[in-house]
Parts: sequence; structure tokens; C-alpha cells
Amino acid sequence: MIQDVIDLNADLGEGFGRWTLTDDEALLSVVTSANVACGFHAGDPSVMRRVCDLAAERGVRIGAQVSYRDLAGFGRRAMDVPPDELAAEVAYQIGALRVFAEAAGAEVAYVKPHGALYNRTVRDGEQARAVVEGVRLAGGALPVLGLPGSQLLSVAEELGLRPVREAFADRAYTPEGTLVPRREPDAVVEDADAVVRRSVAFAVDGGVEAIDGSQVAVAARSLCVHGDTPGAAAIAARVRVALEAAGVKVGAFT
Amino acid sequence: MIQDVIDLNADLGEGFGRWTLTDDEALLSVVTSANVACGFHAGDPSVMRRVCDLAAERGVRIGAQVSYRDLAGFGRRAMDVPPDELAAEVAYQIGALRVFAEAAGAEVAYVKPHGALYNRTVRDGEQARAVVEGVRLAGGALPVLGLPGSQLLSVAEELGLRPVREAFADRAYTPEGTLVPRREPDAVVEDADAVVRRSVAFAVDGGVEAIDGSQVAVAARSLCVHGDTPGAAAIAARVRVALEAAGVKVGAFT
Amino acid sequence: MIQDVIDLNADLGEGFGRWTLTDDEALLSVVTSANVACGFHAGDPSVMRRVCDLAAERGVRIGAQVSYRDLAGFGRRAMDVPPDELAAEVAYQIGALRVFAEAAGAEVAYVKPHGALYNRTVRDGEQARAVVEGVRLAGGALPVLGLPGSQLLSVAEELGLRPVREAFADRAYTPEGTLVPRREPDAVVEDADAVVRRSVAFAVDGGVEAIDGSQVAVAARSLCVHGDTPGAAAIAARVRVALEAAGVKVGAFT
Amino acid sequence: MIQDVIDLNADLGEGFGRWTLTDDEALLSVVTSANVACGFHAGDPSVMRRVCDLAAERGVRIGAQVSYRDLAGFGRRAMDVPPDELAAEVAYQIGALRVFAEAAGAEVAYVKPHGALYNRTVRDGEQARAVVEGVRLAGGALPVLGLPGSQLLSVAEELGLRPVREAFADRAYTPEGTLVPRREPDAVVEDADAVVRRSVAFAVDGGVEAIDGSQVAVAARSLCVHGDTPGAAAIAARVRVALEAAGVKVGAFT
Repeated sequence: MIQDVIDLNADLGEGFGRWTLTDDEALLSVVTSANVACGFHAGDPSVMRRVCDLAAERGVRIGAQVSYRDLAGFGRRAMDVPPDELAAEVAYQIGALRVFAEAAGAEVAYVKPHGALYNRTVRDGEQARAVVEGVRLAGGALPVLGLPGSQLLSVAEELGLRPVREAFADRAYTPEGTLVPRREPDAVVEDADAVVRRSVAFAVDGGVEAIDGSQVAVAARSLCVHGDTPGAAAIAARVRVALEAAGVKVGAFT
Repeated sequence: MIQDVIDLNADLGEGFGRWTLTDDEALLSVVTSANVACGFHAGDPSVMRRVCDLAAERGVRIGAQVSYRDLAGFGRRAMDVPPDELAAEVAYQIGALRVFAEAAGAEVAYVKPHGALYNRTVRDGEQARAVVEGVRLAGGALPVLGLPGSQLLSVAEELGLRPVREAFADRAYTPEGTLVPRREPDAVVEDADAVVRRSVAFAVDGGVEAIDGSQVAVAARSLCVHGDTPGAAAIAARVRVALEAAGVKVGAFT
Repeated sequence: MIQDVIDLNADLGEGFGRWTLTDDEALLSVVTSANVACGFHAGDPSVMRRVCDLAAERGVRIGAQVSYRDLAGFGRRAMDVPPDELAAEVAYQIGALRVFAEAAGAEVAYVKPHGALYNRTVRDGEQARAVVEGVRLAGGALPVLGLPGSQLLSVAEELGLRPVREAFADRAYTPEGTLVPRREPDAVVEDADAVVRRSVAFAVDGGVEAIDGSQVAVAARSLCVHGDTPGAAAIAARVRVALEAAGVKVGAFT
Repeated sequence: MIQDVIDLNADLGEGFGRWTLTDDEALLSVVTSANVACGFHAGDPSVMRRVCDLAAERGVRIGAQVSYRDLAGFGRRAMDVPPDELAAEVAYQIGALRVFAEAAGAEVAYVKPHGALYNRTVRDGEQARAVVEGVRLAGGALPVLGLPGSQLLSVAEELGLRPVREAFADRAYTPEGTLVPRREPDAVVEDADAVVRRSVAFAVDGGVEAIDGSQVAVAARSLCVHGDTPGAAAIAARVRVALEAAGVKVGAFT
């Protein structure tokens, strides 16, 4: 076995005001790390508070899921934010979340960029650096969750933050180990059995079958399960059971 | 002399993106407490960061100027926000500001509601309680700045936070010691000499001439000078000089 | 029979970006008037466009559901907006919606305030007047939908706009004919059979049983069915069938 | 003389709530076309109404200055908005402005993208097409103001809208006739005399001296003067006087 402990993370608290999206309660019974939206793409203060309370109760680690300021686009539209502004925006979000994590007796334990900011910082070194500067500005030397090989993780490491590599349970991989872009066919693995099987493969084999049938190595300390689709919590629960049945311990990375 | 030390506070960082309002740099050379906007009525993350850096450099105390979520109305439109939501919104703002205060080597040292929230919590006990709950949620038992006799200060005291009474250098007072509402004539004292004279009176006499010519007692540990009008910084500087000439020490309350 | 033709209206297009709320497609098969959110409490431009296209296809009248500017509170938090600002905000929303209605070959045919603005303008004459001024500013002398006896409808009539009285299929009424406030028990009628029965009563009897068991007269040319609860579309469909079975014609008021 | 009639346009109404930026009143005495902000990067409904009223009084043409939805970044941060969303956002803004233009007895007579959207649609054909689709969606076949040679103007022409070429009075040009990017030295011409001289050159000579000293042809039916710097209105007035003294008629293009 390549990886005998693996973390399960999911995006949570992605409602806003009257609107709900993620099944926070059910997912918090399954995952070990909660990427909590901080108000820039989703997540109003009341939602943030409730998710932090629930996460703390269940011992789930709380992470800041930081985003571009874009409620209308749910943080999925890349933006050319100047580095200084971006760093300050990242720090602002972490600080806001920290209040609720600490009020619940927990802490903000890591940072993961959301949506377009996550994708952009795979290759855009300038924005990656701005995100990492924002994390440093917020203090506490928080670990950063990202894609193996991304600029984000390189810069995090270079500037003294712990990079944490993650894999995606329900995304197709290229033979080079990058994600197949969503606009391409079969980019998302929809079959629940396949999602479960692939999740175990990341931990046990240290990799997964790529979209061309070849085997690709993907080193991951954390596994991302999605929370914004119907049945997401049920699939996440199956992933957890299967990992444990395969002898993989499910545990947070912090 | 009634009050031998008095604090000077001003609303700062009230720009947003491309827009500026307050002359932050000049005022930070005069005041001892900076009420920093936290993004809900004004103040983007970059502005917050810059004002905190400047305030820390000059030893000016940083306070969270919390507001209703209302950029379009600059927080001047009272809102019926349910208490739980309001408390969470207050905590969120404090947390966001704390990141920048701490990055600058300082801390968020107090809280002051802005605009309509300030006015509403003078008499609305439910919203006053929500604001105080928000301050408590944010931790650190921060002092709360408000109007003498306000619900806000009563509830703060009741719930274990230090209430700090403030007076307004440029506002007319009723014989009962409340502010003459802005919509009435002569509500704002525009003559700079009068502003200076009245500022000294608060400290030296423990009160001021009311709008009907009678003398009214106003106990104040802090004096608010406005920062959003042309010449504001110059008037504030004159107030400070006059206080010191009258033997009043100008010093923060924390 | 008191009312031989009645309109069915529902709030539609209340999603925003990634979030959805109302089952627009199903409800547009049932109602004759669509109160389309215009972006201030819900409704981004893409949603507005889609709902207008669907409504036009099915011959459903399009109305502007105007609101306070409050996405975080879904327009449910009353705000003290100065009359001139409120009028301009109302006109802005109508104009924005008109583009999509006209692009679909239809028009904005009426205006209905949403949430807290609806409730506030029942008794607040100043805000009622501001809303009506906003409707007039937008041109076209649009009818205004509101509660019988409300300031909103009185002012609309006084200023030359057609007032259209509506009743609520699923809300309890006081013996005076006003709505039982939501915070009181039994304010909302949840039993689908009762909702259907009461809907018919408004049209056939010109009134409904009040919460104390007495009969109260409620003159209504339009009947509001809710669209934001699970099963809403199914109940609305049953209401329509029952009205038609009772010999009431279901038809728009414009 | 190459161009015997030239339009003067400026960005106006770029305040928001408590914040002001452009000296709308003074500029409306000088320009022939007002690019009015529509609420996405600046411009609340009250500002939009006031600017439209003033413009109509003075016979200044009203144009919709459409933008990315980005108040915090003043529309200066390029965004990857999907084409359908962008088209709907553009139409929404035009519709909202139209209400105020028509209430003032005028009309929205043209469209000009703002900031990052303007710059991006110089080369990004997909976004250029989305903007033009948004203009078409809004009806009225409005002319589109843009940079000579831009994708925006090509697509506008292709899809049946009148392209209107503009030049910038205070920007340096490359020998190829494009603008020197703002981040480069000497990108902005700050000397008022030079601004005036260059303005006349566009009209009289059909071009201007490029940054390398060569002469570059720039065909322009409209000249953009900036409104957001101190002294902007005074410089604009000098430009107008100089054009008229050189025998160039200053007149709108619609």
C-alpha cells in the first residue's frame, strides 16, 4: 500500500442567504476535512457559523475555501486580480472564517482555493504566489491544498507552507496526471462504483487509470469528494467504507 | 477638570476599490483610535490592510467599524436584520479586520457600529444585543464604543464587555443629551472654531451647550471627529492641539 | 360567483448564479402571471432571460418583482431606503427586466414588490409612494399588484396606476382581512387540500375563513401561489384545476 | 482636414452610493456623448437618473457604458465570463439605463464597454461577439464605440451594428496604432498642452505622433476625454475650444 492514511475533503457551506447547495450535515458525517466557503463565491456569515459549529462537534478539520469575489459566477470565472489585491482578499476570507472556527473551539487548519482560482493557480505563478502571500498574511503558516505539480503547491513549499497534494475521486486524468478539462467528454466520472474503485486506487496503488487506459501515478494525501450533486453524501460514504475495507485509514492531514 | 485623558476616534478606510473618501493618512497623524471600515459599508481588503499598516506604525489603536451589509447605501439605511444573522455579520467583519491588524503587529482593540446600525442600537435593544453577541462571538471581550445612555452600551455592560462612552465634536445635542437628528436644522456644527471649543468643553466641563442654550452633561471617554469632509483632518488637528493646551491628555482608551 | 375570472401569479426566476430555487418550468405551465425577480433579491441576467423566454412562449404575462437591494437577505429584511433612492432602484429593475421581456416578444405587464418591500408598503405610505413613483418613472403606466387595503394600492390608484388586488392561497387571514404574520402559529396553510379549497373560496365566495373561524371578505383579481417550496408546482396545478372545475376562468388581469 | 466633425465622449456617472468620482456636471457642459456607468462597475440607480437628466437637458447623447460585474475592481479586472452570461449582463445594463434615459425624454443612443471589457474585446473575438449579442438582445441596433481595428468593431459591423471608431486624447500610441499599455512608461499623456494638440491632430491630420516619433494614422469619429482625474473637465473644455478654433465641428455621431 502506497498511502496508508488518506484525508477526505469536500466543499461545504456553499449556500448563500435563502439558497442552499451542499448537504453539509450529511457530508460532515463522512469527511475529515471541510473546505468552508468564506463569502466570496458562496457562504454568508450564518452559514459559515453553522458549518464551523457542526464540523467542530464532529472533529472535522476546517479549511478556508478562498475564492475570487464573484457571487454571481460562483467563483468559476477566472479574474485578472492584481497580486496585492488578491493576497488581501485571500487573507480577508481566512480571517472571517477564523472567527467562526475559533468560536466553535476549533481553528482554520488549512486553505484551499475554489473554482477558477484553483484552476488558474495550477499554472499561473503570479496568482499562485498571491494566494500563498495571502495565506502568509493571515498568519499561522497554514497548509495549502492543491493539485500535484501545480504552481500553487510549488510556491507554497518555496515560501515555507506545507503543500498537501490532493486527488479527485470523480475526475478523469490525462496520462500526464492532470485533470481532463470539464468541457471534454468523460471529464467527470459519474458512475458511483467507478468513483469508489478509483478512490481506493489512489490510496492503494498511488495512482489511477488515465483516460487513455494507461496507468498514471498520482500521489495524494487527500481525496476530494464533491458535495454539490444529488447523492454526493451517499457516494462519499461509500468511498470511506471502501477505503477502510481496503485497510486505508481515513484521517485528516493536520 | 472632569476628564483628564480623552481619546480621539475617527472613521477611516472608508474607500472601496477605485473610490476614496477619508483622508486616512492625515487623520492617522491626529487620532488615537481608528474605526476601520470592514467591507460591509466601505473598505475593501486592500484598503483595510493599508490602514492597519499605517495605524500600527503610528501606534493608533485599531477598532472594527462594523455595519449593515449595504455598500450601495454606505450602511446608512436601517435594516431589519434578524438577530442571529446580525451577530454573525458583526463577527465576520471583526475577524476579517483582525487578520490585517495582526499582520501589522497590532490587534483589533474595540468595536464601533457604523451609521444606521449605530443609530438603531441606541434604542433597539434586540439589535443592540445582536451586535454585542457578535462581538462576543468574535472573542477577546472587546470594548464597545457608543452613545452614553444607548441600549448598545447597556447591553455591552450587561454581557461583560467594557462600554466606552463617546461624544461628537461636531454634532448638536438636545437638552437630554441625545444627538439632534441630522434632518433637523443646525444638527451639525460646521464652524471649526465651535467644533474646537466644544471638544474642549466635553473634556474640561464634562458637557456642552445644548441646542436650546442650556448646559448638558455628556460623560465621554472618547471624542469622535469626522473624517469624510474636506478639511476634516485640519479640524481634528486643531481639536487635538486645543485639548492638549487645556491640559487634557489625548490618549486611547485601551 | 363573485369573481368569474381570476389570475394565478407566482414568484419565479428566484435563482442566482449557481443557485436555483423556484421550479420555473413547471410553474410556467400553470400560472397566468410570472413575477420575475430582477436581480436585487434574486435573479441574475441569465435567469431573467430564460424565464422571460419561457413565459413568452407559453403566453404567461411577465411582471417585475422588484425588491430592496439585498441578495444576502433575499429581500426579506426591511430597509429604510430614502424615497428618491427607492424610486430609482424600482425603475432600474423594471428597465433591466424589460430588455428580456421585449427580446422574447413580450413586455413587462405589471409590477409586484417582493418580500419586505411588499410587507412594508402595506402600511408605510412613504415607501409605497416611492415604489409607485419608481413604476411611473419606468413608464408605461404599469398595473401594481398588492394587498387589498394596502397603502401601495391606494397610492397606485391615486397616481393613476391600476391597482390589482391579490389574495394568498396558502396564508391565514385575520378577521380584518390582513395576513396573519408569519411568526405566529398557523400563519401558513400547509395542507394542500386546504390550499385548494381556500383558493376556490376566494373566487366563488369572495372571501375565506379567517383564523378565528369567522368568514372574511377578500376581493381579489389575482391569486398568489408559492413557488419556492417542494411540491409547489403540483399544488398550483391542483388549484388551477379546482378553479376551472368550479367554473372560474383562470386568466391574466392584463 | 480629414475629419470635419468629431464627437467628444467621456465616462460619466462613475460614483456609487456615498462615493463620487467624475465631475459629471462640468463634463456635461463640454462633451457631446456621455458614457454612463450602469451599475456593474459604478453607477447606482440614483446617479444614473441624475446624469441622464442632466445629459438630456443639455442635449448630450447618452450611451451605456457596460462592464463586467465587478464593483470592487471598478471593472478593471478581466473576467472569463461565459458568452451567454456576458451577453445577458450587457443587455441587463442597457435596459436599466434606458429607463432613466427615456424618463428624461432621451434615449440610450450607443454602447461602449468599460475598462477590462473594453481592453479584452480588442482581441478576444468570443467576448467581443458576446458584447455585440448583448447589444442586439437589448434591441434598437445601437452603435458600438470602440478601438479602430478591434474585434469588437469588426463583430459589430458583421452583425449589423454601426461601429464607431474612437481615439484617446491622453494616451500614447504605438507605431501600429494601438494604445501603449498603461503599465509602460509614458503610456498616459499628462501634459495638458500635449493633450490638446494631439486632440486636434486626430481630427485635422487623421493621426498622431506615435511613441517612437513616427506619424501613425488613427481614423476616429469620436475622441475620448477622461473624466476621473482632477482638472479633467478643464482639459476637456480646452480640447473643445481648440478643435473649434481649428475649424473642426464638435458633434455627436448619432
